[in-house]
Amino acid sequence: MHLNLKAEITETSAYKIGALQERYQELIQEGMDIINCTIGDPKDDTPKTIRTSLLNSVQKMHNSQYPSYIGTLQLRTSISESLSKEYSTYFDPETMIVSCNGTKEAIYSFPQLFDWLNNKCVSIPSLSYPVYLLSAKYNQIPFQIMNVSKETNFLPDLSKIDIENTQLLWINSPHNPTTTIASYDYLKQLIELAEKNNFIICSDECYNDLYYDEKPTSILEFDSEHWVCFRSLSKRSHMTGYRSGAVISKNRELIKQLKKFRSPMGVGTPSFIQDSAIAAWSDHDHVAQHRASYKNKRDKIISALNKLDLNYHGATAGFYLWVSSPNHQSSESLAEWFLKKGILVTPGTVFGPDGNPYIRMVYCLTDDMIDKVCTHILK
Amino acid sequence: MHLNLKAEITETSAYKIGALQERYQELIQEGMDIINCTIGDPKDDTPKTIRTSLLNSVQKMHNSQYPSYIGTLQLRTSISESLSKEYSTYFDPETMIVSCNGTKEAIYSFPQLFDWLNNKCVSIPSLSYPVYLLSAKYNQIPFQIMNVSKETNFLPDLSKIDIENTQLLWINSPHNPTTTIASYDYLKQLIELAEKNNFIICSDECYNDLYYDEKPTSILEFDSEHWVCFRSLSKRSHMTGYRSGAVISKNRELIKQLKKFRSPMGVGTPSFIQDSAIAAWSDHDHVAQHRASYKNKRDKIISALNKLDLNYHGATAGFYLWVSSPNHQSSESLAEWFLKKGILVTPGTVFGPDGNPYIRMVYCLTDDMIDKVCTHILK
Repeated sequence: MHLNLKAEITETSAYKIGALQERYQELIQEGMDIINCTIGDPKDDTPKTIRTSLLNSVQKMHNSQYPSYIGTLQLRTSISESLSKEYSTYFDPETMIVSCNGTKEAIYSFPQLFDWLNNKCVSIPSLSYPVYLLSAKYNQIPFQIMNVSKETNFLPDLSKIDIENTQLLWINSPHNPTTTIASYDYLKQLIELAEKNNFIICSDECYNDLYYDEKPTSILEFDSEHWVCFRSLSKRSHMTGYRSGAVISKNRELIKQLKKFRSPMGVGTPSFIQDSAIAAWSDHDHVAQHRASYKNKRDKIISALNKLDLNYHGATAGFYLWVSSPNHQSSESLAEWFLKKGILVTPGTVFGPDGNPYIRMVYCLTDDMIDKVCTHILK
Repeated sequence: MHLNLKAEITETSAYKIGALQERYQELIQEGMDIINCTIGDPKDDTPKTIRTSLLNSVQKMHNSQYPSYIGTLQLRTSISESLSKEYSTYFDPETMIVSCNGTKEAIYSFPQLFDWLNNKCVSIPSLSYPVYLLSAKYNQIPFQIMNVSKETNFLPDLSKIDIENTQLLWINSPHNPTTTIASYDYLKQLIELAEKNNFIICSDECYNDLYYDEKPTSILEFDSEHWVCFRSLSKRSHMTGYRSGAVISKNRELIKQLKKFRSPMGVGTPSFIQDSAIAAWSDHDHVAQHRASYKNKRDKIISALNKLDLNYHGATAGFYLWVSSPNHQSSESLAEWFLKKGILVTPGTVFGPDGNPYIRMVYCLTDDMIDKVCTHILK
């Protein structure tokens, strides 16, 4: 039969990280000793207090009931308390917070809430988490690419954006893949632009809790109706497999309509996972421990990289290294060099053509794996 | 600020069952003794073997990793084995099955895979699970309503559908809310129409395992590339809170593109839930027990209804009663009559205007609650 599917879907190559994983599996099966440094999926344990909370909730559950699709009030209150304390400003759990089934889900679907028949577009950095662009393409939403490069410190140059046609604008600080951090002044200027030109800043902040120098500014610090913030437990609390996050905005009308929009979507998070998320949001100690741990892992790898002709950018937040080498003119060539040493990294071009000639290397690995990576680098 | 949201979202009243639940909560708080018979959410326990499987998986999990978004091969194989055995035809786990985060999620997003710029539409029965219509509206997909009524045995009259303009067609047998079952001949004729007119039948079969008379025909029995089938563990295995289901099609190209489409959507089901789903698909005994249990509950309530001026339709599958009364000309009036007796039911009009003058009453309640419902009916 003829399937009349969206060309944006059929003509897209699959999410490139998937293809990389397949190559890794092939090489492993060929007997090669390779460490996978491509996926931002923490290899250290989820904190015990969170696992215990999940276990207790599962043990108590005899009959299973549909979960709340906006998050229980208890969960939203714990998110509110955690963020209100951290940023010294109040986030009302009833009107400013919606829980989500992991931020990937919420990031993908959020632009669907908007009307795009006005010819406005969603603005996306040229190096980005691929979901922003795939969401635009698969939903046939007009988009504009905002070029970022070393010259712009990997942040969109706000003077060069077609701002009048922007309806939504994605920003991600600390930035995946480059670890660049948007300063307070940068975000302030962006909010002024949003207020003047009536667009919404979509601030993806899944790495904000993992910093090793100054604490990154959050969009949550700004009193404005022109932002929506995506916060995740995946990285902060090592809960990638739980699927739990939050969408926050001070724009009450936006949150009200978002709830209505999400009602038929089937995105309710299982109640036992919501219970474990409460344990995660309520505890800040494990986050501090994760910061200390990642700082240590980062220092070890950087020390190895520094012994060779390799440069890295940023690296004061998140758990990525954005690496280039004067000896390699392309991401692919540099990735191949790493692969020969038994380290699988992601070519920067996976995140957009401006990723050349970098590679992204994760360090959310166990200490044993980190030591092995260092040995592989130096062998 | 001015939010330029889709009018289809801002102008829709919230999912009406949500409003009913609020009314129920209010009356309960006023001290009224009411049994909630509105939500198809089983009140009996999830089978112990499934709960144990979830618990074991959670206990074993120390570090949490991103789940497979198409379902692990082990899960897809267990779905394949369960369905292949039941319908004596092979469903390849690699090319014909995708797991989903509950069928609500998959039903909502499935039409987004298609190109709608050809002016074709999705065809939806006038009495339906509200998600089919909300998916069309919120995604700005053209739709056609197929009238169903007592005269059509609550199935779309296939001779009266604008079939040439149909790209997708929703069918739900056993039908929510009326419990009507589409016969083998009806489905055969529908498939012939689909093949002739090049559309896809979307067969929502979340109640197919709960029958109390002849086993309902499934679209899975037909060797055709023109259907996609949605199967859920929610009702069959009392797993509404787990969020796990499956999408099946013999159209390999459709499944291939569906996988690609779903890759950036963030719909991976947590691995520990996938493990419990394997336990559920692998066991057919608990499903037989659920059938016996619901038949018994149904018989009790029907026996009470029969003592009053109340009629019910169908009721040989699912766990709903579709009730009318010669004394009530509107769903709302009949629902009010039930409410005065301390029973909250859903006005049929929640499922579409053709739901008048019926109400839907669930019997997925504990035996104690069923006895109480009978007492309330007869008081």
